[in-house]
Amino acid sequence: MNYFSSNFKLGILGGGQLGKMMLYDTRKFDIYTCVLDPSPEAPSKLACNEFTVGDLLDYDTVVNFGKQVDVLTFEIENVNVDALETLEKEGVQVYPSSKTLRHIQNKGTQKLFYRDHDIPTAEFSRFAYTSEIDEAVDNGGLSYPFVWKSSRFGYDGTGVQVVRSERDLVKLPNVECIAEKLIPFKNELAVIVARNEKGDMSTYPVVEMEFHPEANQVEYVICPARIPDDIAKKAEQVALKTAKAFNHVGLLAVEMFQTREDEILVNEVAPRPHNSGHYSIEGSYTSQFEQHIRCIFGLPLGNTESKVAGVMVNLVGAENHTGKVVYKNIENILALDGVTPHIYGKKETRPFRKMGHVTIVNKDITVARKIAEKVKQTIEVISE
Amino acid sequence: MNYFSSNFKLGILGGGQLGKMMLYDTRKFDIYTCVLDPSPEAPSKLACNEFTVGDLLDYDTVVNFGKQVDVLTFEIENVNVDALETLEKEGVQVYPSSKTLRHIQNKGTQKLFYRDHDIPTAEFSRFAYTSEIDEAVDNGGLSYPFVWKSSRFGYDGTGVQVVRSERDLVKLPNVECIAEKLIPFKNELAVIVARNEKGDMSTYPVVEMEFHPEANQVEYVICPARIPDDIAKKAEQVALKTAKAFNHVGLLAVEMFQTREDEILVNEVAPRPHNSGHYSIEGSYTSQFEQHIRCIFGLPLGNTESKVAGVMVNLVGAENHTGKVVYKNIENILALDGVTPHIYGKKETRPFRKMGHVTIVNKDITVARKIAEKVKQTIEVISE
Repeated sequence: MNYFSSNFKLGILGGGQLGKMMLYDTRKFDIYTCVLDPSPEAPSKLACNEFTVGDLLDYDTVVNFGKQVDVLTFEIENVNVDALETLEKEGVQVYPSSKTLRHIQNKGTQKLFYRDHDIPTAEFSRFAYTSEIDEAVDNGGLSYPFVWKSSRFGYDGTGVQVVRSERDLVKLPNVECIAEKLIPFKNELAVIVARNEKGDMSTYPVVEMEFHPEANQVEYVICPARIPDDIAKKAEQVALKTAKAFNHVGLLAVEMFQTREDEILVNEVAPRPHNSGHYSIEGSYTSQFEQHIRCIFGLPLGNTESKVAGVMVNLVGAENHTGKVVYKNIENILALDGVTPHIYGKKETRPFRKMGHVTIVNKDITVARKIAEKVKQTIEVISE
Repeated sequence: MNYFSSNFKLGILGGGQLGKMMLYDTRKFDIYTCVLDPSPEAPSKLACNEFTVGDLLDYDTVVNFGKQVDVLTFEIENVNVDALETLEKEGVQVYPSSKTLRHIQNKGTQKLFYRDHDIPTAEFSRFAYTSEIDEAVDNGGLSYPFVWKSSRFGYDGTGVQVVRSERDLVKLPNVECIAEKLIPFKNELAVIVARNEKGDMSTYPVVEMEFHPEANQVEYVICPARIPDDIAKKAEQVALKTAKAFNHVGLLAVEMFQTREDEILVNEVAPRPHNSGHYSIEGSYTSQFEQHIRCIFGLPLGNTESKVAGVMVNLVGAENHTGKVVYKNIENILALDGVTPHIYGKKETRPFRKMGHVTIVNKDITVARKIAEKVKQTIEVISE
């Protein structure tokens, strides 16, 4: 297939920030793109060739959209997977495949997949309803504290709760879920694996999520992770094994824990470009978005090494601010060395809404990390 | 002015490849952009917020377009400069200014400017018509060989001819022109200067245009230039002096000759992002397009240093090919290390038409240069 011809069409399900950043690279390669998103003001609207407003979870909408394209991908997991399967049968190249997505979409199935494929992960139990957990605790099959995760439609931390007592438990929605052993970890790490249909694979360097000491929120994504080489190698091996087990085509972001005993456990995966890879736009020889396109088109994979070290800071809406967004002091962070803000183009801010991110690159990771702290202290995402 | 607000509008005159690449950065910063271009299929059409089809040389068209925006810039010199002056008077921020553009648009005026400001440049004479040159030669005021340049509307090498005899001369159009001393040079160099209204200035590293030994065409733009430090410093100083003399706001690409005697002579300038700075998208901490935006918005200038060395190869239409374009073997160059093709999105190829470029980056300039040669031998821009 000639991807670089005007007869070719790439479809992207979802037009959020990930889709928007993928369009940087489709524009660079002049690839014809069609985007489907429920919001008429989606960040991807501008730079695609055709934009369709529609429900990503509606079977007919996705099938009708997908029928017009040659290759179909997604920037979000919450899409109608039956529609993807239908499209595959009709000859549309869907990458990642409906089969992979089906395993990943449901966190219970995802965990079972790890168990079946001997991929290290925290112990867990599955429940059809949250209300069934109580009984398991009474029976001694489960004990506090544990991590509760909604099996479906969790995204960016929603649908995940640490449960320390029955009091926490009763507040949770009564849905299909898993209860996972709470893992005391040294580090939260991530590796992005790129894999094409031929089975060519490569990994981006291990990145580290540095948490705020009090707020327990990821503050910085740091590439490369400040961990010993043998731990990095172990994390890469686990990530590669995971992508291979899924027979994955596209990017697979593998989030992992480095336990206190230096075990590597897979926490969860995302079959798409990922927040932990945003630094790659400025830091890597090949940005994760270009790499995703290379994967799904069966093109040779790009170099995943870093030109320079990178730190990424998410720009989230400040507390107590809702409404038309203002990026206060953005001019000031532009005066700092190696700083690139990415503004996603969402019109309205809300507390903790992801509005953009800032990448800080430098030859020296320690310098980048210090500048990142300054960025975080300077810029504010507020309302008018 | 709050450039990052949805009330702000940036206008760009010209929607060619330079405008298209500038939009990578306006998208990144979520800056609202309006583009004016005569072609309804201009490369910039997709990623701007408002696209207007219109003649860039028509006074009313440019004034009416410019009135709707807050800051106006251009990606091409051939725009109606009287319209820019009118817009300035009406309070639109036009950068670079109409005054600078007026000096540059006419090559005769440009050369006079260098003479008046003590900027080293090759000796020259101005003529109202090419037909007047003959007399000057007869009078002994000029002798063959010399370089003939049309004073107006030369672009990308058109309007420039080496004249070795009367036979060459009679083939030229009878227009306002200059005759310039033919300079035997060791190297053709370029320096891109960034300058904002406050007078903050910075230069990108000196790049070298490597010529094809036979075809006498630029084959590779190499950053950094493989020249001694003292020559590089001299070239930077000349470029800075030139930008300052123009009181320039925006990018100024200064093309220079390094003569056999290691003199630096300004050949010509372009008041905009430039082919010689394309490598910066992948090679530099700040791409030239982002830097231009920083300049015209009065934002702090970005770091102009390189993360890695870069070589740029233009993708021009092959001889004997006219029609719907095909990028033959593009998949093969994607297999080479550090290679990024940029496809401008022009539907039709013609012999020597600029259809895209390829950047090759590497820690080692010698390696990048070798890979660039392979790129040039591999990819072909042909018609279907």
